[in-house]
Amino acid sequence: MTIPTFQKLIRNVYTLSELKLKISNSEILHCTQPDQIKIERIITLHQDVPNSLSYASDKSYLKSAKESKATVVMIPKELGPQMDRVCLLVDNVDLALIEILALYFPEKHPQGKIQKWVVIDSSASVGSNSDIGNFVSIGANSKIGKNCIIADGVKIGDNVTIGDDARIGPNCVFFDGTTIGNRFICFGNTTIGGDGFRFVEIQKGVHHKIPQVGSVTIGDDVEIGSNTCIDRGGLDDTVIGSGTKIDNDVQIAHNVKIGKGVIVAGATAIAGSAVVEDYCKISGACAVADHITLPSGTMLAGGSGLRNTPEKADVYAGWDWNLTFREFQKFRANVKHILNLNMIVKRIKDIEQKMGIGGN
Amino acid sequence: MTIPTFQKLIRNVYTLSELKLKISNSEILHCTQPDQIKIERIITLHQDVPNSLSYASDKSYLKSAKESKATVVMIPKELGPQMDRVCLLVDNVDLALIEILALYFPEKHPQGKIQKWVVIDSSASVGSNSDIGNFVSIGANSKIGKNCIIADGVKIGDNVTIGDDARIGPNCVFFDGTTIGNRFICFGNTTIGGDGFRFVEIQKGVHHKIPQVGSVTIGDDVEIGSNTCIDRGGLDDTVIGSGTKIDNDVQIAHNVKIGKGVIVAGATAIAGSAVVEDYCKISGACAVADHITLPSGTMLAGGSGLRNTPEKADVYAGWDWNLTFREFQKFRANVKHILNLNMIVKRIKDIEQKMGIGGN
Amino acid sequence: MTIPTFQKLIRNVYTLSELKLKISNSEILHCTQPDQIKIERIITLHQDVPNSLSYASDKSYLKSAKESKATVVMIPKELGPQMDRVCLLVDNVDLALIEILALYFPEKHPQGKIQKWVVIDSSASVGSNSDIGNFVSIGANSKIGKNCIIADGVKIGDNVTIGDDARIGPNCVFFDGTTIGNRFICFGNTTIGGDGFRFVEIQKGVHHKIPQVGSVTIGDDVEIGSNTCIDRGGLDDTVIGSGTKIDNDVQIAHNVKIGKGVIVAGATAIAGSAVVEDYCKISGACAVADHITLPSGTMLAGGSGLRNTPEKADVYAGWDWNLTFREFQKFRANVKHILNLNMIVKRIKDIEQKMGIGGN
Repeated sequence: MTIPTFQKLIRNVYTLSELKLKISNSEILHCTQPDQIKIERIITLHQDVPNSLSYASDKSYLKSAKESKATVVMIPKELGPQMDRVCLLVDNVDLALIEILALYFPEKHPQGKIQKWVVIDSSASVGSNSDIGNFVSIGANSKIGKNCIIADGVKIGDNVTIGDDARIGPNCVFFDGTTIGNRFICFGNTTIGGDGFRFVEIQKGVHHKIPQVGSVTIGDDVEIGSNTCIDRGGLDDTVIGSGTKIDNDVQIAHNVKIGKGVIVAGATAIAGSAVVEDYCKISGACAVADHITLPSGTMLAGGSGLRNTPEKADVYAGWDWNLTFREFQKFRANVKHILNLNMIVKRIKDIEQKMGIGGN
Repeated sequence: MTIPTFQKLIRNVYTLSELKLKISNSEILHCTQPDQIKIERIITLHQDVPNSLSYASDKSYLKSAKESKATVVMIPKELGPQMDRVCLLVDNVDLALIEILALYFPEKHPQGKIQKWVVIDSSASVGSNSDIGNFVSIGANSKIGKNCIIADGVKIGDNVTIGDDARIGPNCVFFDGTTIGNRFICFGNTTIGGDGFRFVEIQKGVHHKIPQVGSVTIGDDVEIGSNTCIDRGGLDDTVIGSGTKIDNDVQIAHNVKIGKGVIVAGATAIAGSAVVEDYCKISGACAVADHITLPSGTMLAGGSGLRNTPEKADVYAGWDWNLTFREFQKFRANVKHILNLNMIVKRIKDIEQKMGIGGN
Repeated sequence: MTIPTFQKLIRNVYTLSELKLKISNSEILHCTQPDQIKIERIITLHQDVPNSLSYASDKSYLKSAKESKATVVMIPKELGPQMDRVCLLVDNVDLALIEILALYFPEKHPQGKIQKWVVIDSSASVGSNSDIGNFVSIGANSKIGKNCIIADGVKIGDNVTIGDDARIGPNCVFFDGTTIGNRFICFGNTTIGGDGFRFVEIQKGVHHKIPQVGSVTIGDDVEIGSNTCIDRGGLDDTVIGSGTKIDNDVQIAHNVKIGKGVIVAGATAIAGSAVVEDYCKISGACAVADHITLPSGTMLAGGSGLRNTPEKADVYAGWDWNLTFREFQKFRANVKHILNLNMIVKRIKDIEQKMGIGGN
């Protein structure tokens, strides 16, 4: 038995009966004394920890759910008839999991505390009940909303606007003019609003910098990971739509327009002036070329490169060949033939010689 | 009409007449009262903002320039005869744009202000008129030039030299011994001079660290984006030549030598001891293998990998196949045939069988 | 002659005689007065610096070692008979180099100094003789071991444990609950323990965040570069085994398990729940897909992508095709034929037409 580090800190304990009351419309299966079952940890199906609850989101996890050593397994109601162990039946396992995790790991709430070593320009404002950590600076005319938590070491330039309920991790940087909506989340060492990368070469090797005077505009409910960069626009703004989630180590260049509800996974790069329309999902380690458009709902498989605007929304894969994922699977299945292309060419030549045709 | 965030802050307004005077050798076209035309914003051709100036660098933007709702469009003189709208004719649009942007968005100048919460070692020096932000530390024997702006949270180690007129963004880190020329620019959370990644494995899985005692030497007029890393050399220095521009999220390993006037776009990685000669242009999301040399003037298309030193300077593309961009375009055009290679092989086999040749 | 920046700072000078005494079991070759030879710099074979020592790890450098302008060249004993110049013969050149570099560039040792502008929670502890830099914060219940050097600007959350002898560079961030063993090294702007990237989409485009309540557990003797991210686990911990070395700009997603003695070079991304078993070596700019396993000892060539768990440990290469490096070399050799696949197909069609077979 190994208890994950963070779970050792859990102080809240609920009985199964109590959990049933907390999760609306839930039911208990195969348990006669749910008020005697204490749940102290939330674990994956393969872990072995006493007094624990695990979960199976759908039937693909049915076998693991049956075999799990968790004290209780939370499953969708429709799987109930197939289980003969203690279960908590719920309408939607993922949403119920979110509720349960919030019980055991209650979020930190701000307390309106501004620490000691903080520099807030006299023209800046901080909303009620927001926490500002040490070694933070907030520049001229910037506005931080209410109920925010700004962690230690964050640097906020001039004319920055951040909405209510933000959670900003340590050492993030927001350059002048960045505008962010409500409920913004970001983690450590992320940089928003640095200059776009644009130079003009008049004389060979002499690159004149074009001033970057656009900014970055971010909607509501956006989450950004750690060590991600989003550059300011050249003249217009770089835009991140509401509900979009961006992972770690992502590079988003100047003038990019990302729509609503988009997913961008880790280590992806999106080049200048690309447009990623609403609801696109870009997996990790992808590259999107400059000035192209991903139609609404387009998906990129992990490690994909896209150089041209695709004709329509689909799942694309492969490095820079605009293949759909299905085509890419055919590509992969044929790679073994590529390794023998020299022999294939030789066989064709042999045939041609025998037939007295061709020349090459 | 949407005014970009940052442009809402513009306080300077010039009439078209005044702009003409500011831009040397410029002319006004199709405008009888240029002193009545106020320019308050600088926009792209597709934006619709009153009292605005836009620009078209060359004839490829001619149609957009004609249709633009900008009050004035700045164009090269040779396009004048094709326009029947209000224009500002200039010798070089890009250089004129740089001048105009500087009028509307004047650069911040340092004022020789050293903030309160700053640690400057007694053996370090800061040149005249340089600004040092809060939460900055400057180590022993380090020298910062004059007219620099060192933003909040920057950490400068021992024996670091930074020339005049530097602009260093928040939370950047410079390890001991880094040497940088004049007019250096970098943005947020960039790290210069961390140890190179070199270990020796004597016994399986036991990696002995080789001390990294080279440093990083950066020339004049270098710009570096956000969240980029440049490692110190092992024994000798990692070198970045004068006039080179490096984007965000770039990884430059130990002992790399980058020449003068080189461009390295975002999310690119350059492995240890690679040499990138003068005037190379490396697009975004590229990978350059260790110990190879890119001859002067070599270009890499976006998302390219290069494992071997190419025979000569050219434009290369593709992931690790040393193709020129032209060859890569042929590769891409033939990908559809790869998907059917199994059928191609089958057709050859059928032919061979019919002819009674071959065996496989 | 160019002396590398950092080497100009060397204050310790040893004679060749003294070096011989310092390096156990070493011998001097072709030198009558080794106490007259002063060594002031440690250089590569191609540099030209007076009073210098260089080294050749094995016979592949024999020619360069013979031609080197270094005053003394350190070589393995078995190469002695082939040399007619001043040499220092040693059992293992790399290990001897580590010893010599430590003589010329002595490591900084902590002095138990806690700087002035530091926030250490009253429930946190710092071990004896550890240095804590300025602008550092250490949260509730966190424990820092003894003899550590925590550089300026590091942010350590609550319930973080860091073992003895750590060397942590400026502006690194450690989120709540991170646990790290002894002799940890990391450089600048690295972020450990940010939330994993997991959302559930119930309604189109509305991404519900799944709380990430696992943490990060790191073993002993781990080194991590600059601007690298390691996310906390979802429920269980993200784990980095002892002796593992991770370079700059690496992204390690939630729930990843990395074994012991693993190498992960720069700009690589490892997706969620991937398993990298002991002694794997992942080169730079690689991508490892989520939920796959790299068997113990697997190697990935630079710029490789791996989407599926390989059948066995081997050296893999290519972007996402699960080729061994040998197969990948065949692939590369055949790329030229891919460029002509359209002609190959045409030749087959011509043959078929001549033979009156096929149709397509």
